[in-house]
Amino acid sequence: MVNVDLGDRSYPIIIKDGALGTIGAHLKKLGLKGRAALVTNRRVGALYAQTVIASLSEAGLDPFVITLPDGEGYKTLECAQRIYDGLIRHRMERTSPVVALGGGVIGDMAGFAAATFLRGVPYIQAPTTLLAQVDSSVGGKTGVNHPRGKNLIGAFHQPKAVFIDPLVLKTLAPRQLRAGLAEVIKYGVIVDEGFFAYLEANVERLLTPGSGPLAKAIERSCRIKAGVVSADEREGGLRAILNFGHTFGHAIETGAGYGRYLHGEAVAVGMCMVAGFSAELGLCPEPDAARIIALVEACGLPARARDIPVGVVMRSLRLDKKVASGAIRFILSTGIGGVVMRKVDERDISRFYRRFMRSGRS
Amino acid sequence: MVNVDLGDRSYPIIIKDGALGTIGAHLKKLGLKGRAALVTNRRVGALYAQTVIASLSEAGLDPFVITLPDGEGYKTLECAQRIYDGLIRHRMERTSPVVALGGGVIGDMAGFAAATFLRGVPYIQAPTTLLAQVDSSVGGKTGVNHPRGKNLIGAFHQPKAVFIDPLVLKTLAPRQLRAGLAEVIKYGVIVDEGFFAYLEANVERLLTPGSGPLAKAIERSCRIKAGVVSADEREGGLRAILNFGHTFGHAIETGAGYGRYLHGEAVAVGMCMVAGFSAELGLCPEPDAARIIALVEACGLPARARDIPVGVVMRSLRLDKKVASGAIRFILSTGIGGVVMRKVDERDISRFYRRFMRSGRS
Repeated sequence: MVNVDLGDRSYPIIIKDGALGTIGAHLKKLGLKGRAALVTNRRVGALYAQTVIASLSEAGLDPFVITLPDGEGYKTLECAQRIYDGLIRHRMERTSPVVALGGGVIGDMAGFAAATFLRGVPYIQAPTTLLAQVDSSVGGKTGVNHPRGKNLIGAFHQPKAVFIDPLVLKTLAPRQLRAGLAEVIKYGVIVDEGFFAYLEANVERLLTPGSGPLAKAIERSCRIKAGVVSADEREGGLRAILNFGHTFGHAIETGAGYGRYLHGEAVAVGMCMVAGFSAELGLCPEPDAARIIALVEACGLPARARDIPVGVVMRSLRLDKKVASGAIRFILSTGIGGVVMRKVDERDISRFYRRFMRSGRS
Repeated sequence: MVNVDLGDRSYPIIIKDGALGTIGAHLKKLGLKGRAALVTNRRVGALYAQTVIASLSEAGLDPFVITLPDGEGYKTLECAQRIYDGLIRHRMERTSPVVALGGGVIGDMAGFAAATFLRGVPYIQAPTTLLAQVDSSVGGKTGVNHPRGKNLIGAFHQPKAVFIDPLVLKTLAPRQLRAGLAEVIKYGVIVDEGFFAYLEANVERLLTPGSGPLAKAIERSCRIKAGVVSADEREGGLRAILNFGHTFGHAIETGAGYGRYLHGEAVAVGMCMVAGFSAELGLCPEPDAARIIALVEACGLPARARDIPVGVVMRSLRLDKKVASGAIRFILSTGIGGVVMRKVDERDISRFYRRFMRSGRS
């Protein structure tokens, strides 16, 4: 178990095989009773809703299911409205919990609905993708997309508990599993060289759902994220280090058009680019940058996005308002396990990008 | 000036003639700069937007206006979406303030948008109705209505400052002014007999916008509400006393169909009913109940809703989920200046309602 330490908003992250079947008992211990909304999508719901429903019912709660369409395209205010409709139709009260069972889209959207229904009701996360388990389910960021940008509408609303069942990853598409590993690698890169070395030594088993090393990597990732979030709940400072690789990553993701690269894949590319860039600036030892790129590639993730021309990336960075007075604020690597925030000249970035795209094995 | 004491979320309520023209200077002092969104409706905007815009511009901010339709019927997620669209189109950032200029509908909706845009941006209230000045602009409750009920979607989001200009009441419809006085009277009834006596002694001038006693009544009301909110920000206990008269009031409001009674009018009826009921239960001295009813009537407000049959009221109370196991939780009067929370048998209420409707002068 990992604890997210936020005073009276603290909560546990329960990581263990079969965790989904223990949700009801935990909620009962938290004093939650009456109606409980299980928000999920069709695919995940077909696989795991019954387990959670049974657990809630056994604990004396009165559950019902709200099923939403699957995919980032549905992370909208309109779908949040469908959650509100369900909560009202089923007579949810201020003390009734909302349980999010699914990936980041379900978690973010159900969390936003929980944050804003009756000015806030209890909220439980049961993330079923690796990305959601190690990243979006921890930290209280909730929200929906706006046609003009991702997560523009949202709220900070910490869950009462997070239930991570590593066994659910057995039904996750391999590409999604690999994408989640990008964020796992990130934690090693930004603050924990020992963890990074552990990942290097266990690449094979990280790609195997149900393995001990994968479960251990999830726990370590949650512990690191929990530490950062505890120190900076509302992203006033430290929390920015979690965006390592994300500035380039978002530029790649939007530049390519959403859907072409998975978020984790774009972050993988972004991390490799920042590592290379940090090395070029003399901040990061060359061998460390090489190890980052090698681990990314060993996990079957892209290290470069050769199909995205420099102009597209630079335009995305500008649209993203990351550029101020010709400079961009980057989280750079000082070697595996360390980062530093630095403003970088826009022209240096485009020059570097061209060189980096031409380098590498393939 | 009244201070709402909430630790690092504390804020001032500036009450003075011409306060609207001082908003810019205050925001500058708070360190806010760049773009500023002024959210208002057509009617209020035509009268006062220029004053606020000029004040913001003089202080070096870069304001723009978002104009919404007027009326409770527009307090919806769809209108909140129009605010988001405007904020995005005008490139608002996380530190850009949203200024709500209008009555409770504008304040609640702009506040909700500010609470949820980029997970929360600074928010300023400039209430232009008496009801908003003494009630909804203080305390951080924001929200929109759902087709199935009022304020079902919302968030707690405290403003950075509230600017109350008593002179704007000169352009408020007299009926709206009277409706606002219902909440003013409420503060006297629940915690301050001295204030209640002051209101009794100054009825005439309370009905005169621009008068000293009205400004004084606004300040005293804000001070009382600020004290209650400081003690119980998220309505865990004490804050419930602010709902005095509102249980019956809501039942009248919905029973009659929204729009027939203004919120303040329904609250006036509700207060008189609870006062009478409290007297019948022996909790409130008869003369105190009579004084409450007399002050309500002296302010030109209804003390009874003879057109609403008991069946309609009881059904509204049940739909409102105020009834649990045949009992309803009421804030009752123990005499002017005091309240007590008590569960009351549903049947006692319907019996009382019938008698009360038949009593009285008219």
